[in-house]
Amino acid sequence: MVLYRKWGSEKDYVSTYTSSIESDKEILEEVKLVMKAHVIELYLSGYLNKEIAGKIISAINSFHEIKEGYEDVHEALEDYIIKTVGEEGGWVGFGRSRNDHVATALRLRVRKYLIDILYSLLDLRKTCIEKSKVSKEILFPTYTHFQPAQPSTLAHYLLYIEDELYSIWNYLFSSLLMVNRSPLGSGAIVGTNAKLDRKREAELLGFDDIIYNTISATSSRLDLIQSISNLSLLMLFLSRISEDLILLSSMFINLVKIPDSHVSTSSLMPQKRNAVTLEVLRSKAGECFGDLSSLYVIYKGLPSGYNLDLQEMNKHYWNCIKMVIPSLEVINSIINGIEVQEFKVDEKITATDVAEDLAITGIPYRKAYMEVANKIRAGTFISEISPKISIYKKAVIGSPNPELLAEEIKNKENRLIEDENKLKSYEEKILGKLNELKVIEDDIL
Amino acid sequence: MVLYRKWGSEKDYVSTYTSSIESDKEILEEVKLVMKAHVIELYLSGYLNKEIAGKIISAINSFHEIKEGYEDVHEALEDYIIKTVGEEGGWVGFGRSRNDHVATALRLRVRKYLIDILYSLLDLRKTCIEKSKVSKEILFPTYTHFQPAQPSTLAHYLLYIEDELYSIWNYLFSSLLMVNRSPLGSGAIVGTNAKLDRKREAELLGFDDIIYNTISATSSRLDLIQSISNLSLLMLFLSRISEDLILLSSMFINLVKIPDSHVSTSSLMPQKRNAVTLEVLRSKAGECFGDLSSLYVIYKGLPSGYNLDLQEMNKHYWNCIKMVIPSLEVINSIINGIEVQEFKVDEKITATDVAEDLAITGIPYRKAYMEVANKIRAGTFISEISPKISIYKKAVIGSPNPELLAEEIKNKENRLIEDENKLKSYEEKILGKLNELKVIEDDIL
Amino acid sequence: MVLYRKWGSEKDYVSTYTSSIESDKEILEEVKLVMKAHVIELYLSGYLNKEIAGKIISAINSFHEIKEGYEDVHEALEDYIIKTVGEEGGWVGFGRSRNDHVATALRLRVRKYLIDILYSLLDLRKTCIEKSKVSKEILFPTYTHFQPAQPSTLAHYLLYIEDELYSIWNYLFSSLLMVNRSPLGSGAIVGTNAKLDRKREAELLGFDDIIYNTISATSSRLDLIQSISNLSLLMLFLSRISEDLILLSSMFINLVKIPDSHVSTSSLMPQKRNAVTLEVLRSKAGECFGDLSSLYVIYKGLPSGYNLDLQEMNKHYWNCIKMVIPSLEVINSIINGIEVQEFKVDEKITATDVAEDLAITGIPYRKAYMEVANKIRAGTFISEISPKISIYKKAVIGSPNPELLAEEIKNKENRLIEDENKLKSYEEKILGKLNELKVIEDDIL
Amino acid sequence: MVLYRKWGSEKDYVSTYTSSIESDKEILEEVKLVMKAHVIELYLSGYLNKEIAGKIISAINSFHEIKEGYEDVHEALEDYIIKTVGEEGGWVGFGRSRNDHVATALRLRVRKYLIDILYSLLDLRKTCIEKSKVSKEILFPTYTHFQPAQPSTLAHYLLYIEDELYSIWNYLFSSLLMVNRSPLGSGAIVGTNAKLDRKREAELLGFDDIIYNTISATSSRLDLIQSISNLSLLMLFLSRISEDLILLSSMFINLVKIPDSHVSTSSLMPQKRNAVTLEVLRSKAGECFGDLSSLYVIYKGLPSGYNLDLQEMNKHYWNCIKMVIPSLEVINSIINGIEVQEFKVDEKITATDVAEDLAITGIPYRKAYMEVANKIRAGTFISEISPKISIYKKAVIGSPNPELLAEEIKNKENRLIEDENKLKSYEEKILGKLNELKVIEDDIL
Repeated sequence: MVLYRKWGSEKDYVSTYTSSIESDKEILEEVKLVMKAHVIELYLSGYLNKEIAGKIISAINSFHEIKEGYEDVHEALEDYIIKTVGEEGGWVGFGRSRNDHVATALRLRVRKYLIDILYSLLDLRKTCIEKSKVSKEILFPTYTHFQPAQPSTLAHYLLYIEDELYSIWNYLFSSLLMVNRSPLGSGAIVGTNAKLDRKREAELLGFDDIIYNTISATSSRLDLIQSISNLSLLMLFLSRISEDLILLSSMFINLVKIPDSHVSTSSLMPQKRNAVTLEVLRSKAGECFGDLSSLYVIYKGLPSGYNLDLQEMNKHYWNCIKMVIPSLEVINSIINGIEVQEFKVDEKITATDVAEDLAITGIPYRKAYMEVANKIRAGTFISEISPKISIYKKAVIGSPNPELLAEEIKNKENRLIEDENKLKSYEEKILGKLNELKVIEDDIL
Repeated sequence: MVLYRKWGSEKDYVSTYTSSIESDKEILEEVKLVMKAHVIELYLSGYLNKEIAGKIISAINSFHEIKEGYEDVHEALEDYIIKTVGEEGGWVGFGRSRNDHVATALRLRVRKYLIDILYSLLDLRKTCIEKSKVSKEILFPTYTHFQPAQPSTLAHYLLYIEDELYSIWNYLFSSLLMVNRSPLGSGAIVGTNAKLDRKREAELLGFDDIIYNTISATSSRLDLIQSISNLSLLMLFLSRISEDLILLSSMFINLVKIPDSHVSTSSLMPQKRNAVTLEVLRSKAGECFGDLSSLYVIYKGLPSGYNLDLQEMNKHYWNCIKMVIPSLEVINSIINGIEVQEFKVDEKITATDVAEDLAITGIPYRKAYMEVANKIRAGTFISEISPKISIYKKAVIGSPNPELLAEEIKNKENRLIEDENKLKSYEEKILGKLNELKVIEDDIL
Repeated sequence: MVLYRKWGSEKDYVSTYTSSIESDKEILEEVKLVMKAHVIELYLSGYLNKEIAGKIISAINSFHEIKEGYEDVHEALEDYIIKTVGEEGGWVGFGRSRNDHVATALRLRVRKYLIDILYSLLDLRKTCIEKSKVSKEILFPTYTHFQPAQPSTLAHYLLYIEDELYSIWNYLFSSLLMVNRSPLGSGAIVGTNAKLDRKREAELLGFDDIIYNTISATSSRLDLIQSISNLSLLMLFLSRISEDLILLSSMFINLVKIPDSHVSTSSLMPQKRNAVTLEVLRSKAGECFGDLSSLYVIYKGLPSGYNLDLQEMNKHYWNCIKMVIPSLEVINSIINGIEVQEFKVDEKITATDVAEDLAITGIPYRKAYMEVANKIRAGTFISEISPKISIYKKAVIGSPNPELLAEEIKNKENRLIEDENKLKSYEEKILGKLNELKVIEDDIL
Repeated sequence: MVLYRKWGSEKDYVSTYTSSIESDKEILEEVKLVMKAHVIELYLSGYLNKEIAGKIISAINSFHEIKEGYEDVHEALEDYIIKTVGEEGGWVGFGRSRNDHVATALRLRVRKYLIDILYSLLDLRKTCIEKSKVSKEILFPTYTHFQPAQPSTLAHYLLYIEDELYSIWNYLFSSLLMVNRSPLGSGAIVGTNAKLDRKREAELLGFDDIIYNTISATSSRLDLIQSISNLSLLMLFLSRISEDLILLSSMFINLVKIPDSHVSTSSLMPQKRNAVTLEVLRSKAGECFGDLSSLYVIYKGLPSGYNLDLQEMNKHYWNCIKMVIPSLEVINSIINGIEVQEFKVDEKITATDVAEDLAITGIPYRKAYMEVANKIRAGTFISEISPKISIYKKAVIGSPNPELLAEEIKNKENRLIEDENKLKSYEEKILGKLNELKVIEDDIL
C-alpha cells in the first residue's frame, strides 16, 4: 500500500512519529484541487488524453477520506487514484512532487483563510464605526501607565480600535498578495523534464503570478510565516483590548459592563463575574505567539530545499489561523453589548486642561504646568472644567472632541468601503478563475 | 445542567471558546483521585459520615466520561456526583474550589509523566554506555564549526550524549521534587472555613510536602513551567544530536548509516534516503520551545490569583510532555542500530598531534603550532600519526583514549545505578502512599 | 534640573533603573527634528511669534548631547531650551507630550533605517542577478532533507536567493508605508486644546498621512513591531543561506570555497577553516528573533495608553535593525567571492531524469519510477545522463535550464529596476518635504 | 599581532562583525584565573619549571585591558604573555584551547553571579517574612480573574511572595550545582596529549567535579541556558508582582501606595503618579525572555562541537543576569515602603463565608452556595461577616488567618536560615579552594 517509502520494514512507532495525516486533513480539498489542475495541465500539454484525464479527475472527485497507513495525504490520494483508475493513474506522478503540490495546497488554504479573516476584520471595523456614532458623548476613561489620564469617550476608544485594525488589515492584505503566487510545476526542487506551462497552471488556480525559482517555490515558507506573523500581531492587539476590558470591568473599577453571555462565576464564590472569553482570548494571543515561535525555530535551522521539518510547521499555521475569527467575534459581540457605567471623576482629571487654558492666555506652558502641579501637591487644586467640557475643548483631529470625531468617522467609513471593494473584487477574480477550471473539468469529464 | 455559571444564557460559541474539556481529558483520572482524597478528608475531619462518603466515592469511581455541555471536568464530575448520590453529593463542594483541585491534579499528572520520562532517560543513558563498551575503537569524526577537528571514536561520542543526559536527568529530578508538593485544601485563594488537615491530604496523595501559602498553591504554575522548561532543554539537546546524525548520514558525507526503519524516500526521486524521524524530532524540539513560549507569554501578563488563562496553559504541558518519550525512543533505536562507515581522513586531522608532540619535545606550543601551520599553508605538511594512534595519545580523562574511557564508563555505570535506585525508591514511596489511600477508600466503601 | 518628576527624592538606583538615555541616543536627531516641527507649527498657528520661535530653534540646533541626570532625551532637550532661551522656552511644552514626540521620532528613525535596508537589499538582489549571468553552467548541488537531490547550477541557487529577497523587499516596503504616518499633535493620549494642524505637521516631516486616533498615535507600536517582524524574517532567510554555505564549505563536503577574509582558524588546531562570519550571521538571526520575542512579550501584557514598558522596547528595535545591513554585506561579499569546486557525482543524481524520460516514452510515471527504484535497490542502476545534460532537460520556467534562466534573469532585472525606481521616488518625496521644512526654518531664524 | 587567524587579510568589517571583545570584558578576570590554573597545572605536571611559570603568572597578573585588534580576550591575553615573557610564553597554548578555557571562565563567572543572586533572593525572602510579622491584620484584597475574591491580609500576600521565591531559590541552587563543574583540560574537543590532571585543575578553581566527556565540556552550554531559564522564571514571577502593584496602586483602585521614589509624573499631565520602576521591571522580564529565546534559537540549530555561535550567546547571559539583582532590589524597596489604604468592601466579599457557615450547620455546600447565589442575584444578599472576622474564620494552614500565619512564619524563618547556611558553607568551600590556588601562586612567584 505504501507507494514511496521502501527502505526498511517500518516499525509502527516510526510511522506514527512522522505521520502528517492529522494536519493534512486541513488541506484535503486543496490537495485534490491542485492534483486536478495538474491533471488538466498534463492533458492540455498533451501527456494525457481526454479519457484518462477524465478517469483520473473522477477518481479525485470521489476521494473523501485519508485512510490509515499512509505517510500523508499525497500518497493516499495517488494510491487511491491508481487503485481506482489502474496503472494509467500512475501518470499523476509525472512532472510533480509532493514538494510542489503541498506548497501549492498550503497557499490555497491560507489564501482562503486570509480572505475570510479580512472580511471578519471589516465586520469588526464596521461595528466600531457604527457604535462610535452613538457614543460620541459617552464618557470613557483614558489612562497612561494605567493611571487615569484625561477625559475621553467610548467613541474615541472604539475609533482607536478601528485605527489599529486598519493597519493590520493592510498588513494582511499585503500578505495575501504574496501568498497568492503559484509554486506549482516546480517538482521536488529543480522543476521537471515534463513540458508543463507553469503560468497556465497558476491561472487555473486563481494565482496572481508564479513564484519563479523552483527552489524558492518548493522549499520556502516565508510567505506563510509572514502571514502568521501578521496574524499574531492581530491577536496581540486584541489581547491589549481584552486587557483593557478585563481591568475596567473588574469590580475594583466597575466602569464597564461586559455582556452576561461573556461572564462566568466561581464554583466556590457565588458573587464573581469573571470575564472568561476575554481571558481566553488573552491567552490565545500567547498561544499564537507560541505557534509563531515554533515556526521561526523550526525554520531557522534548516538548509535550503525541502526538509520534513516543513511538514511539522503545518499544524502551527492551522492552530494560529483558526483562533482568529472566533476571537474577532468575541470582541465584536462584546463591543456590541458593552455598557459603560457613569463614573465619578476626580477633578484632577482636567488638570491638563487648566494648564493648557493658562497657556492659551499667554503663559509659557511649562510655567503653567508648574503652577498647577504645585497646587495639586499642596492640595489646593480645583478645576471648574467638567469632563464633558474638557472633551469639547480638544482641538486636534483624532481627539475625542465629538465635532472632530464626526469628520474622522466619515473618513473611516470611506476607507472601509474602499477596503471592502478591494477585497471583494480580489476574491471575485479568484472565484472567476476557479470557475474556469471547473468548465475545463466538466468538458473533460 | 450547568452548576456554576449563571449570569447569562450563554451562546454556544462562548462555551466552545472557553471550554477546557479537550485538555481536561488528560487529567480525568487525577481529578477523580483528588476528589476522592478530598472526600476522605471530609470524612476523616467529621464533615461526612461513612455512608455518604462511601456513596460519593462510588459515584466518583463510576465516572468515566466528560459529557458535553460542561465548562470543564470539575463541573461535570460534581454534577455527576450530585445526580448519582442526590443532594448530599453537594458536600463535595465544601472546602474546595476548582482552583485548588485543578492545581493538585495537574501536579499529580506531571509527577507521573516526569517519573516515566526519568526512566526513559535512564534507558537511553544505559544504551549509550552499553554501546560505548563495544565501540571504543570505532573511529568517529569530531568537528568544531562543522569542520573536521581531531580523531575520535563512536564510544566517545556516545559518552558525550550520556554526559548531557546526566545533567538533564538531574534538572528533571529536581523539578520532580518541586512539583510533588500539595496545593490541596487551599480553596479558591484564601483557603476555607472548613477544618481540613492539608498535611494529611498531602500524605494521602503521596506528596512530599504542602505548598504553604494558599495564593501560591492555587495560582502559581511556576513549578510546572520549570518542568516544561527543563524538558525543552532535553528536546533542545536531542535536536543537536539529530542534527549531527542528519548531516553525517547525508550522502554528501556518508559517515553514518541510519537504520532503514528511520529512513524514507521521495515521491519523485527514487534514490533518496531521508532521515525522517530525526527531522521530525528536530522540529518537535522547535514545537516544544513554542509551547514553552506560550506558557511564558500567557503567564507573564497575569496578576496574581487564578485567571482562566491558566486553564489555557494546560494543553501546552501535555503537548510538550508527550513528545518526549517517543523522541527518546527514536534516538535510542537509532543509536542501537547505527552503523559507522570507515572514512578516509586527510592527514591534517592529526596536525594538532604533530604540534603537541613537538611541544612535548620541549618547543613552546605556540611556536610548534606555527611551524605546523606554515607547513600546512605551504602544502608540505605530512603526518605519520594515524587516527588510531592519535586517540591513544590522548592523555586526559574524558578524552577518546580507549584506556581512559574504560574508567569513564565505569564511573558512569555507577552513577547510573545510583540514579536508578534514587528514582525507584522515590516512586515506591509515592505508590506506597497511594496504596494507603486505597486501603482507606476500601474501608469506607 | 529635573523638569517633570517630583514625587519623591529619587534614589540613584531608581534613576539608573528607569533611564532611557542610552537608547535615546539613537533618536537624538529625530527628537530635535520633531521638536522643530512642533515649534514651527506653534509659530504657524499663531501661538509663538517669529522671534521666540527663532530663539527656540537656535537652541534646538545647538543641542548636541544628553547630559546625565535626566530621565530621557525629551526632558534634557526641554530643559536645555529653557535654560538657553529663558522662561519663554517653556512654550515648547504646549500642545505636546513626550508620548506623541517619541512616537514620531521613532517612526522617523525607523523610516530612515528601512530605506537604507531596502537599498542594501536591492544591492544584494543585483549581485545575485549579475553573478547568475556568468554561472548558468556552473554545477551546484541541490538537496532535500540535506540529501543530494538533482543537478543544478550556481545561477539557479543565486536566483533562488533573489526570489526570496524579492518577497522580503515587498514586505518591508509595505512596512515602510505604514510606519511613515504621523502621530504628531496627539499629546499624551487625547490630543490637546492647542489648535495644531496635525496634517500640516505631518507634511513638514515628510509623512504620507496622519494616524488619526490619538490613542493609536501615542500608544501603538504595532507598525514598529511589524517592521521588526519582517526584518527578522529577512535574518531568518539569511540564516538559511548561511547554513547552506557553512555545510557546503565544510571539509566534509568541500563543494564551496568561502573567501579567505571570511574564514578563521583555531588556536589549537592549525588546519581549520572556519566560516566565522556566517556562523555569527546565523546566531544574529537568533538574536533578532530574541528581540522580536521581547517586543511581543513586553507589548502583550499592556493595557492601552502609553506605559513605560514602551520605552524599554526601543533598544530592541535598534539592536535588531542595526545587524541587518552588515549581515546583508557579509552575504553580498561572500557571493561575490564564492568559488564552487567541481564535484564527483554519483550517477543516481540523475535517476529522476531516467524515470521522467521513461515517462516521456509513454510509461505512467509511477511505473517508471518503480523500475528505476528497483534497479537502484538491486545495484544495477546506471544512468547515461550527465548532470549538464540533466539541467538542459529541465522544461519549466524557474528551473536551472540555462536557456529558461535567461528569461528569468531578464524578468528579475526588470522588477529590480522597478523596485529601485519606486524606492528612489519615495525617498525623494520625503527629502523634498524635509527641505521645505528647512526653508521655513531658515526663514524663521 | 594576530596569533591564530591567518587565512586572508581580513577586512575591517569582518573583524568587527565577528569580534567578541565587548562581551569578553565580562569574563576578563575569570579568563585570567583559568589561565593561571592552567599554568599551575603545567608546572605541577612538570611541563614548566618554576621560573617560567612565575614569569607567565606575573604577566597574567599585569594584564588589565583587552586592546583592539584581537578576535577575543584569549588571543589578546596569550599575545600579551608572549610579548611580556618572550617565546617561552607560548607554552600557555599547550594542552589548552580557547574552547575549554572560555567554557571554564563562563562557568566561573555565572557561578559568582548565581551566588550573589541567591543572597539577594534570601534578602527579599527575609523582607517578606519580617514585614509579614507586622501586617497580619492589615487587610489586603485577593482576586481571581482580577475580580475581588475573599478578604485577606498584606501578610498573606507577602508570604505568597516568599513561597514562590523559595521554589525559585531551590531551582537556582540546583543550577549552581550543575554549573560548578569543570570543563578545563578538554582542549578543543578531544582533550590533549599533554598529561594534565583534570581533577586537580577542577580543585584549584573550586569546582565540585569535572565534566567528564571532552565534547560535552567544550561544546555544551546546557547548564548555562538552564540557569538563564531559571532566572527568567524569577523575572516572570517578579513581573506578576509588579503587575499586581501597578494595578492596585492605580488611582482607579487606589488600594496601595508605592513609595514616592518609585513614582514619576507626566510632562503634560501634572497629576499623574506612574509606577515607573515596576513598569520597567515588567518589561525587563520580557527582555529576559527574549534573551532566553535567543539562546534557545541559536543553540537549537547547532551540530555538536564548538561553533562561533556559542560566542554570540554570551552577551545574553550577561544581559539577563545583570537585570536580576536590581530588580530584586526594586521589589525589596517597594515592599519595605508599601502603604496599604483602607478600603471599602462590598459585603459580597464574604459571600463565600456565609455559604460555608451554612454548610457547617449541615447544609450540603452546593445547596448553600445556590441559596447565597440566588440572594445575590435577587439583590437581597446581606452579610454580617466583616472582612476581619472572615480572615479569622479561615481554618487551614497557609490561609490568612493570623493565628495560623504565625506558624507559617516560623516555618519559613527556619527554612530561610537553613538555606542561608547552605549557601554560606557552599560559598566558603569555593573561596577556600581559591585561597589554596593563591598559596600555590605565591609560592611560584
